Amino acid sequence: MRPLKALLPLDEALTMCLDLAAPIDRRETVPLGDALHRVMADEARATVDVPPADRAAMDGYAVLAGDTARAGKTSPVTLAVQEKLHAGDVPTKRVAKGRCTQIATGAPLPRGADAVVMVEDTERTKDAVRVYRPARPRENVSARGSDIRKGARILAPGEVLTPAKLGALAAVGRDSASVWARPRVALLVTGDEVVPPGADLGPGQVYDINSVTMAAAVRESGGEPVLLGRVPDRLDALRDALTAGLGEDLVVFSGGSSVGERDLILDVLQSMGDLLFHGIAIKPGRPTILGRVQGKPVLGMPGNPTSCLSNCYILLAPMLRRIARLPAAARVLEVPLASRITSPLGRVEVHTVRLVDGRATPAFKESGAITSMADADGYFEIPANVGVVEAGERVRVTLF
Amino acid sequence: MRPLKALLPLDEALTMCLDLAAPIDRRETVPLGDALHRVMADEARATVDVPPADRAAMDGYAVLAGDTARAGKTSPVTLAVQEKLHAGDVPTKRVAKGRCTQIATGAPLPRGADAVVMVEDTERTKDAVRVYRPARPRENVSARGSDIRKGARILAPGEVLTPAKLGALAAVGRDSASVWARPRVALLVTGDEVVPPGADLGPGQVYDINSVTMAAAVRESGGEPVLLGRVPDRLDALRDALTAGLGEDLVVFSGGSSVGERDLILDVLQSMGDLLFHGIAIKPGRPTILGRVQGKPVLGMPGNPTSCLSNCYILLAPMLRRIARLPAAARVLEVPLASRITSPLGRVEVHTVRLVDGRATPAFKESGAITSMADADGYFEIPANVGVVEAGERVRVTLF
Repeated sequence: MRPLKALLPLDEALTMCLDLAAPIDRRETVPLGDALHRVMADEARATVDVPPADRAAMDGYAVLAGDTARAGKTSPVTLAVQEKLHAGDVPTKRVAKGRCTQIATGAPLPRGADAVVMVEDTERTKDAVRVYRPARPRENVSARGSDIRKGARILAPGEVLTPAKLGALAAVGRDSASVWARPRVALLVTGDEVVPPGADLGPGQVYDINSVTMAAAVRESGGEPVLLGRVPDRLDALRDALTAGLGEDLVVFSGGSSVGERDLILDVLQSMGDLLFHGIAIKPGRPTILGRVQGKPVLGMPGNPTSCLSNCYILLAPMLRRIARLPAAARVLEVPLASRITSPLGRVEVHTVRLVDGRATPAFKESGAITSMADADGYFEIPANVGVVEAGERVRVTLF
Repeated sequence: MRPLKALLPLDEALTMCLDLAAPIDRRETVPLGDALHRVMADEARATVDVPPADRAAMDGYAVLAGDTARAGKTSPVTLAVQEKLHAGDVPTKRVAKGRCTQIATGAPLPRGADAVVMVEDTERTKDAVRVYRPARPRENVSARGSDIRKGARILAPGEVLTPAKLGALAAVGRDSASVWARPRVALLVTGDEVVPPGADLGPGQVYDINSVTMAAAVRESGGEPVLLGRVPDRLDALRDALTAGLGEDLVVFSGGSSVGERDLILDVLQSMGDLLFHGIAIKPGRPTILGRVQGKPVLGMPGNPTSCLSNCYILLAPMLRRIARLPAAARVLEVPLASRITSPLGRVEVHTVRLVDGRATPAFKESGAITSMADADGYFEIPANVGVVEAGERVRVTLF
């Protein structure tokens, strides 16, 4: 058996992972309806003014502001109504002194008019309207180009498409967006004892949890999982699987990274490319591997489901977000710890917690317990140089 | 023209919206790979123990703990190695006194053995191993059922499927989950001036922004948008469109809710069902309608894109999350306001803000400006009874 070599500090391991995570250079054009939360690859510039013309911001009457200057609650000004415009209509008459055009919100302002009097400030007679309040010039008018001016940059490359940003694209008539492709992540599972959920369990066998959790974690970080299934613990099979995985942007396998005799993945990595690290000073998640083959990052996760998923959050998610060109951000809360936790010096400990009454309550069960993660809301890290965190101390919880 | 009646306070309007939002009662079975962030409809119980048998938590040697009691750094205990087990293997030999079995992480513990000595605490010779550290009973053993006991409830109805929860289902062999169906939301756009993005813009026309933003907002709140397109401003067309929309769980239309003469949707609602409110004391978003037709909620959004999207966050999202049986939660941050804002008494004002250096910086441009929302990170509300919020005061920002 080969013992783990000197363990790498977590921050160094993360830096090495990120150094291998090259931002994706494939782009694709997707309809706006499919572009939510995708990342803009190009800038978007307005080819039209928004609004395309001066238009009414309120239902009412398009007037010359000057005509209404003397209007008051007890001294209305009366104007002749010459036309009626709904949104979508095109004005045919110029508004001259003493006249006005009835106008609905969104309808184009007729020539001559420079303000809109709200319907609430008027009283209608058959062919005329009494105005009870003076309108300032430009009042209740949305000026052409006031929202977006033709030629202006609406969105920059790298922006994540929220509903409002999709709306800004629609506003200038775009029906699709040029976005970065989602990174494709080849997922491999080693371990002759592993069988897929849904199958029957023989003696000595366990269900494949990691394919399911890794695929979900990949999706949460903007990637697309490519499930390559279980690989037998044989050199040739592992080599073939890794070769297949290298067609994707990133290869992740779980299992085969501990110090067991059959941990052939190390040999495969070293023969096909470079082994960059093996073993991180972190718990859970110590037996983790990073390699590079044909320029592609290859991440080896522990077979233990909790360790594997924990590393998905700590190492894989930041890598993937960088490849996907998503902001690094994670949701972090600072809350008091509910009960004292001790941690050995010299390694980072990752503790899953539930948020109960605004406090971080440890959810840890045992290293192998997937339920300790299923019940948790997030995790915090105890640094390598900290041996104890007291109840009531504030910890930074990263939410799942 | 018909003026808006007395405006309803926002909290009353929201309560009425939520009262109409009946939690969905359709369920569906989806493969685990498609179940991320879906809501469990049934409870899930374990039909197997996890792990299914006592097994090694470390690579090493399965021993009788008693045999190692006197082991020390300078006084190793020597045990005969009788068998070698990889994960997935089935033990064939009982571990008797003075003997042990070489064992890999995850392999089943052989009968007789009650502890595992870590490989790091041993030194191997040909057929024997020297043990340099005593093992406590059960040390480095994952006991059968210690993660999940057969019969235990793994997930409760209503839980949102995170990667870890999907992992818990996989751990007990489940390859699918029974989840609540996503609420289907019929989206209608009124307004004869509106044309779909991608088309050419004629005089007096504007692009349909609301179909795009509403569909995206529906997806963000766990719903499935059903785009029914633009409806001509005619009574019969509106009636037909509403009838089509009633096949879904919720009907939302934008436009036609202001006080314009052509706001026929009010007549349609009143003739086909009940009009519950028309007009909310909120800015933006005042001309908003709630109705009920054949027991289904019908929400009428303002045609103005900013008002429409603002109401998607304030009214539609909470309704949809209730229908979808998602937790009400939104992400809220308390941060200082960057600059003073005044607000008229008597109505709630919604202000979009950007988070700059940890402060909420107003992003407001003008009521019709979709860019004021596209540039924002979230929004906060100024209550109806507050006239001014000073710079530095802490405000609760709901993130988009």
